[in-house]
Amino acid sequence: MPATQLTLTALRGIKLVEPGDDLGSITVDAFTANALAPEDGDVLVVAQKIVSKAEGRYVDLATVSPSDQAIALARSLDKDPQFVQVVLSEARRVVRHRPGLLIVEHRLGFVMANAGIDHSNLPSAEGGERVLLLPKDPDGSARRLHEHLAGALGAKIGIVISDSFGRAWRKGTVGIALGAAGLPALIDMRGRPDLFGRALQVTETGFADEIAAAAGLVMGQADEAVPMVLVRGLGWSAPELPAAALVRPAEHDLFR
Amino acid sequence: MPATQLTLTALRGIKLVEPGDDLGSITVDAFTANALAPEDGDVLVVAQKIVSKAEGRYVDLATVSPSDQAIALARSLDKDPQFVQVVLSEARRVVRHRPGLLIVEHRLGFVMANAGIDHSNLPSAEGGERVLLLPKDPDGSARRLHEHLAGALGAKIGIVISDSFGRAWRKGTVGIALGAAGLPALIDMRGRPDLFGRALQVTETGFADEIAAAAGLVMGQADEAVPMVLVRGLGWSAPELPAAALVRPAEHDLFR
Repeated sequence: MPATQLTLTALRGIKLVEPGDDLGSITVDAFTANALAPEDGDVLVVAQKIVSKAEGRYVDLATVSPSDQAIALARSLDKDPQFVQVVLSEARRVVRHRPGLLIVEHRLGFVMANAGIDHSNLPSAEGGERVLLLPKDPDGSARRLHEHLAGALGAKIGIVISDSFGRAWRKGTVGIALGAAGLPALIDMRGRPDLFGRALQVTETGFADEIAAAAGLVMGQADEAVPMVLVRGLGWSAPELPAAALVRPAEHDLFR
Repeated sequence: MPATQLTLTALRGIKLVEPGDDLGSITVDAFTANALAPEDGDVLVVAQKIVSKAEGRYVDLATVSPSDQAIALARSLDKDPQFVQVVLSEARRVVRHRPGLLIVEHRLGFVMANAGIDHSNLPSAEGGERVLLLPKDPDGSARRLHEHLAGALGAKIGIVISDSFGRAWRKGTVGIALGAAGLPALIDMRGRPDLFGRALQVTETGFADEIAAAAGLVMGQADEAVPMVLVRGLGWSAPELPAAALVRPAEHDLFR
């Protein structure tokens, strides 16, 4: 049963996260600071960047030796060879490239620009530029936060770790779910009747992706620092599935 | 400035829309019935189906003569030749097909399954099956509703006409914007500083698509009839752009 009313609330005043910070404690503190008392069925959307930062997923570009492949590709892309090397190290394959654009299949299956690595909103390390990789296991990160909050607050709070993705055929980025726990990232509608009792043609909905996109409206993308958004009012009856369920296997993608 | 709090409210009790119905009056009545008083800056998300129904975009499959191309394609897809003919009539080109799946570029540029035509949630016409096309001009439909509401309610209410789309590399459908008026469907972030004062790498956000995805969480997709959702709390400073701005021109798509 979908919500009659859905409320998304920005968690403000979250400190800049550093490697080794405990995301669970930061989250509990953020709820307190924002006078929020999360309940069973609430969903917390967490920006990928602060998860990666807490997990220390930085790479100092000065320490990277680009391969011949990275050097050649960087030249054709007009990008930095060290940066391209880091992207390739996170990728299974290059999907498309042209000057300024490098779309890869990330080792976790996400098809995305630059393997999700970027320079923005990152303080420079002393004397060098550092970049931030995606979390090693975003579903695992979401699961740990879900369990931490269950212990600390006594509530089952769904977790979505979000990022902004470009799309093949549409302009502009939208929020998507890199990781999820405690909710069905994908909902199978097969067999459910439509308004007239027929079986539905649309068989699966990207529930966690829609949640991440909704949170994107509150997070903003530029100089506003809203890395967490609490969503209240969602309902679901489908079984829990991680965000990995949202990745279309390469052999089923719409281009083969 | 993104919202601190965003509220999405389902408009319930909307009657089944018939060809020739006035969507403007239906909307005003729905606000009243749901005790909602929309304000400047609110956004109303309207499901494509009720817009198409009001515009009478039905095709009776019994009246369709399939071309040789449609017959051959239908055989390879294991679909109905008349249905395939209607899809082709709405399409610029076939993007991909395989048994059970027909992805086309719609005449409006949307890359989507079956040109957005489906059978679900449609009452059968007497003695035959009818299908429903997308609105002829979704941005125009949104504009008309925007202007009707400005006249009737004295408020500037953004309009998004939404549909559910599959994605190339991800499973599950998500809400997207087919039409928009009174808001920036696409927001250009170029030149905006990030938290550390650098120019952003992500340059455009699919604002109306994120709004449509958020509304999808409230609309549901099966036997729940929530064809309108009111979104309150969004803020924007970017210039208005129609949903056509979200269509990546074919010559720029990520597969050429």
